[in-house]
Amino acid sequence: MARRVAVIGAAGYGGALGAGIVQRHPALELTAVTARTDAGRRHDELYPIHRIALTMDEFDPDRVADVADAALVAYPHKTAAGAVRKLRARGLKVVDLSADFRLGQAAYEHWYQPHEAPELLAEAVYGLPEINGHREEIREADLVAGPGCNSTAALLGLWPLREHLRDAVVDIKTGLSGAGREATRETHYVSAADNVNAYKTEGHRHSAELEQELPAGIGITFVPHLIPVDQGLLASCYATTDGDLTREDVRVLLEEAYAGEPFVEVVGAPPRTADVRATNRARVYGTVTGNRVLVESAIDNLWKGAAGQAVQDLNLMLGLDETEGLS
Amino acid sequence: MARRVAVIGAAGYGGALGAGIVQRHPALELTAVTARTDAGRRHDELYPIHRIALTMDEFDPDRVADVADAALVAYPHKTAAGAVRKLRARGLKVVDLSADFRLGQAAYEHWYQPHEAPELLAEAVYGLPEINGHREEIREADLVAGPGCNSTAALLGLWPLREHLRDAVVDIKTGLSGAGREATRETHYVSAADNVNAYKTEGHRHSAELEQELPAGIGITFVPHLIPVDQGLLASCYATTDGDLTREDVRVLLEEAYAGEPFVEVVGAPPRTADVRATNRARVYGTVTGNRVLVESAIDNLWKGAAGQAVQDLNLMLGLDETEGLS
Amino acid sequence: MARRVAVIGAAGYGGALGAGIVQRHPALELTAVTARTDAGRRHDELYPIHRIALTMDEFDPDRVADVADAALVAYPHKTAAGAVRKLRARGLKVVDLSADFRLGQAAYEHWYQPHEAPELLAEAVYGLPEINGHREEIREADLVAGPGCNSTAALLGLWPLREHLRDAVVDIKTGLSGAGREATRETHYVSAADNVNAYKTEGHRHSAELEQELPAGIGITFVPHLIPVDQGLLASCYATTDGDLTREDVRVLLEEAYAGEPFVEVVGAPPRTADVRATNRARVYGTVTGNRVLVESAIDNLWKGAAGQAVQDLNLMLGLDETEGLS
Amino acid sequence: MARRVAVIGAAGYGGALGAGIVQRHPALELTAVTARTDAGRRHDELYPIHRIALTMDEFDPDRVADVADAALVAYPHKTAAGAVRKLRARGLKVVDLSADFRLGQAAYEHWYQPHEAPELLAEAVYGLPEINGHREEIREADLVAGPGCNSTAALLGLWPLREHLRDAVVDIKTGLSGAGREATRETHYVSAADNVNAYKTEGHRHSAELEQELPAGIGITFVPHLIPVDQGLLASCYATTDGDLTREDVRVLLEEAYAGEPFVEVVGAPPRTADVRATNRARVYGTVTGNRVLVESAIDNLWKGAAGQAVQDLNLMLGLDETEGLS
Repeated sequence: MARRVAVIGAAGYGGALGAGIVQRHPALELTAVTARTDAGRRHDELYPIHRIALTMDEFDPDRVADVADAALVAYPHKTAAGAVRKLRARGLKVVDLSADFRLGQAAYEHWYQPHEAPELLAEAVYGLPEINGHREEIREADLVAGPGCNSTAALLGLWPLREHLRDAVVDIKTGLSGAGREATRETHYVSAADNVNAYKTEGHRHSAELEQELPAGIGITFVPHLIPVDQGLLASCYATTDGDLTREDVRVLLEEAYAGEPFVEVVGAPPRTADVRATNRARVYGTVTGNRVLVESAIDNLWKGAAGQAVQDLNLMLGLDETEGLS
Repeated sequence: MARRVAVIGAAGYGGALGAGIVQRHPALELTAVTARTDAGRRHDELYPIHRIALTMDEFDPDRVADVADAALVAYPHKTAAGAVRKLRARGLKVVDLSADFRLGQAAYEHWYQPHEAPELLAEAVYGLPEINGHREEIREADLVAGPGCNSTAALLGLWPLREHLRDAVVDIKTGLSGAGREATRETHYVSAADNVNAYKTEGHRHSAELEQELPAGIGITFVPHLIPVDQGLLASCYATTDGDLTREDVRVLLEEAYAGEPFVEVVGAPPRTADVRATNRARVYGTVTGNRVLVESAIDNLWKGAAGQAVQDLNLMLGLDETEGLS
Repeated sequence: MARRVAVIGAAGYGGALGAGIVQRHPALELTAVTARTDAGRRHDELYPIHRIALTMDEFDPDRVADVADAALVAYPHKTAAGAVRKLRARGLKVVDLSADFRLGQAAYEHWYQPHEAPELLAEAVYGLPEINGHREEIREADLVAGPGCNSTAALLGLWPLREHLRDAVVDIKTGLSGAGREATRETHYVSAADNVNAYKTEGHRHSAELEQELPAGIGITFVPHLIPVDQGLLASCYATTDGDLTREDVRVLLEEAYAGEPFVEVVGAPPRTADVRATNRARVYGTVTGNRVLVESAIDNLWKGAAGQAVQDLNLMLGLDETEGLS
Repeated sequence: MARRVAVIGAAGYGGALGAGIVQRHPALELTAVTARTDAGRRHDELYPIHRIALTMDEFDPDRVADVADAALVAYPHKTAAGAVRKLRARGLKVVDLSADFRLGQAAYEHWYQPHEAPELLAEAVYGLPEINGHREEIREADLVAGPGCNSTAALLGLWPLREHLRDAVVDIKTGLSGAGREATRETHYVSAADNVNAYKTEGHRHSAELEQELPAGIGITFVPHLIPVDQGLLASCYATTDGDLTREDVRVLLEEAYAGEPFVEVVGAPPRTADVRATNRARVYGTVTGNRVLVESAIDNLWKGAAGQAVQDLNLMLGLDETEGLS
């Protein structure tokens, strides 16, 4: 019997795609979608491509609990935590796509704000199955925090080097869907097309996820750049390592780290984000250049960086095949 | 009286723009354009936007010398050196846009091939007026080597830090015109749009220019990335420095380095390449992030990174105002 | 048991996508891929996104016939006919994506060249299931000619008006993948980005398909335009009609024509090509404006305009559900 | 002595470019810029590319009259008329970029709203110098209405056919800057990139300008489409004509209409908008196809379609060379 899933916040790019993946998923049934600003409209009016005929409701945790066993929550930071608490209180398994459950309380409150549901942090698991033994934790979890898109790409690039790593510069190139659906000066086509620029150069909070997931004491410099791409994210990870790793050493580390992984491909040339577009895959390439180890890691920010990975997590939480509905 | 200028190799993107700038220049007269593959066609047939009614000839140094006092040479590496030699032998002042005269012979032959005109290297000057005292050298020079577009942006970013600099990671994002006019798999719209990828990850030869122009002993890691932009180049320079530079220190170093420079603007936020499109300007921004000094440096790769800077050099060589025809 | 399918010409955009759809299709098995220029390379080396681990062979009809019951042929016009003849002689069912079997011999030879396999024209069926009763013909056919992408969009727009139609101006806006994989001056990113232009203004041969499929005597003016889009095609059909059709009349004609069609959606506002990207759907909108009936018809040129529709045809030919593997 | 010019509404795309052109103009002096939403900010903070160091003020007609002899008004429809009245009352010559003074009162009030300054309509001149004898009127005018971008391209295409013209379908492809600076769902990069769609299919008000400027009785169907281009507009004009015009006839009509025109080029192949980017030029191409005369007309919507043409008008009004500051 299909598991019933609700998507909370289905009007944004991540939530809309999450709803679309759930709807096409052979073992899941999409039973409800909610939205804040567009409640009352049919989902396929906003996103015809996903063909979801459901009307987006205001969020009512009781109604959601009536029709769903699990939920993807795609609300902004801070708003998410309150919704997650209400759904957990009603027994739903939850994958939250916001930052609210990715970090410990101290780190979260340093980078964001006072936490809205700190009592849930203990049960939350970081939802990147490929690293740090999280896959097994996710299988047992009732609450999973979907990693940030920048962190997903960077961690997949750096994780295989962790035992050798002293310092890393992570230069992110991310597409416009990563900036969210809100229409702003920065997301206007005329502003974004034919342009590239860095943003949040003074401490992007996604580096906190890297510090949490990698061994202590590694210096991280993390700078995101906006490029005129719809969906797609490339993390260029420049690592200073202990010892003299050769290109072949790096290749072997990557191959070993991701042997058998269904969604991570170790490739023999710098990956193109176009080659992972609209897939849940990451493609990683490692080499040595200048005095650095370089790993280039490409994902689709909305898929492996958000909604696809959330369903990958949900598959694990529900005892399904990890790849179901995602290939 | 206007100085007569020829553009050798006016069918490529850099040469075509160079011809266009010369033609609009109040103190220069465009008297000849040559091309290898498109000889016999009118320039405005290929590039209507520049409105140059001249027919592109096969390169004949005698004919060029008859009508021109100076030349921009926009041939590929190796081919350029031979043309430059012929023009210098006939007394023309030359700005060469290729790599052929940017490096010393040893470095050149390490990265490229045996040099075709090594006897001219002694007189060649590196054409980045804003650094290393080159402006005065350029005024006296008969042969100037236009710096590479990547190097221009990176050097403008790193030069102000040179006395503090130990190591730098330079992550370049460059538009498609930097890949040249040749139609290839990589430059096909379907391949290049909605995509980003690194290329030449194992030692891009532009780092040789950085090593030459910066103090000895600085470790340079240099990786270029292709982004779906027409014209535009951003160098993200992650520097490890001696001592503890504050954000304010970095700002002051940049301001001091470029005080009075007509084409370099030190700005208060990460620069956008769109804000320098079709101009000869660079915009640079310095800050401190993670454990690095970061300088972001934006140029138009065809202007300040190639043809615009070549005319800036030519202005200096001819005793004209450095900015003439460029603003 | 899965039907075994070969894709002939899998190195081009249309063939590569066709192979990808077949490979993911639950009732088909991709058993061979061939290519002309890239024979000997693995398909996933050229197109990692489709994850096809097969090596592309030179075309050998005997080998193909050994492993396949049906074939998609994605060769250029003229080359295709020869390959189709060889495959048909060996008993394979064939969907041909070229123009070679779309038209009668006279029309074909007017627009193209002497036909290479005229004896097969009698059995060939025009593969647009939604119009002219073709669906039933396709079910019985051994050879189906996949319609052109321009014609598909235009015919889906005009077909519902056919009994009222006197004259139509069809203004096509098509993405760059429609121009094929060949790297040319026109397909270079720098040339194609931030640009729009008409091409083949003097008689585009796709109008022949319209003349064939619509009632005789309708004047057709047909002009394609290239826009900076990867995949996507919009046909703006300006129709002069007999009688005074109201907006409501037009809506009803469209609704009636496509009631129950799985791949054609009649929508209430001008369709966006982004809303059909990477799907086999068409979205059509009809209205009255100025003194014309206007139908806007949006498809993905590589899907409903080529490879997706070819698999839709193949499903019909093989007695499968028409939508299998396509949603 | 330079004429002093103010730009009213310099925060939008058209006004900002107008200010930039005026500032670089050798015979004009930019003395004031105003803005509604961004008053108090320096212009170069919003638009670094134009390098205008002036602070944008709230609009105060007395202050403007103190420092300026003429003004470009780049306000939205309706708001513009009030500002124009105040400036005219203080004796300034005005070019208005809105629709407020393009049409007679009846047509205006049909398409827009009650007119805010109907008493000025009698003195207003339609600012398309190349047609209908407007150039001489503009020279004498104190108030000129800058034509719409769509109308400019379409009229330049259709004007030479006017004596033969019975009916025209005008299919417009316009870039995103034509939609204005406001950030909306439609102008979001993710929405606009890789997409094309029609909009305002039921009667776009720009057709009113065509009806006014062309001989009476010509049927006009006018549909604009949004394409992923920054600056650029193409009008495809499908004309039904009296008599049998040949391709050569059409070419001659165009050549005769625009002989000696500094800003209109009759070209021998379908024009590319990229070839007029950031210029005040139009490129037009005429041919015969299907049963229609086709004229393709390309402009930059912000230049010849707005700010560039406004300065062209201003040059005429001030007795300057028509091309000054525009080439």
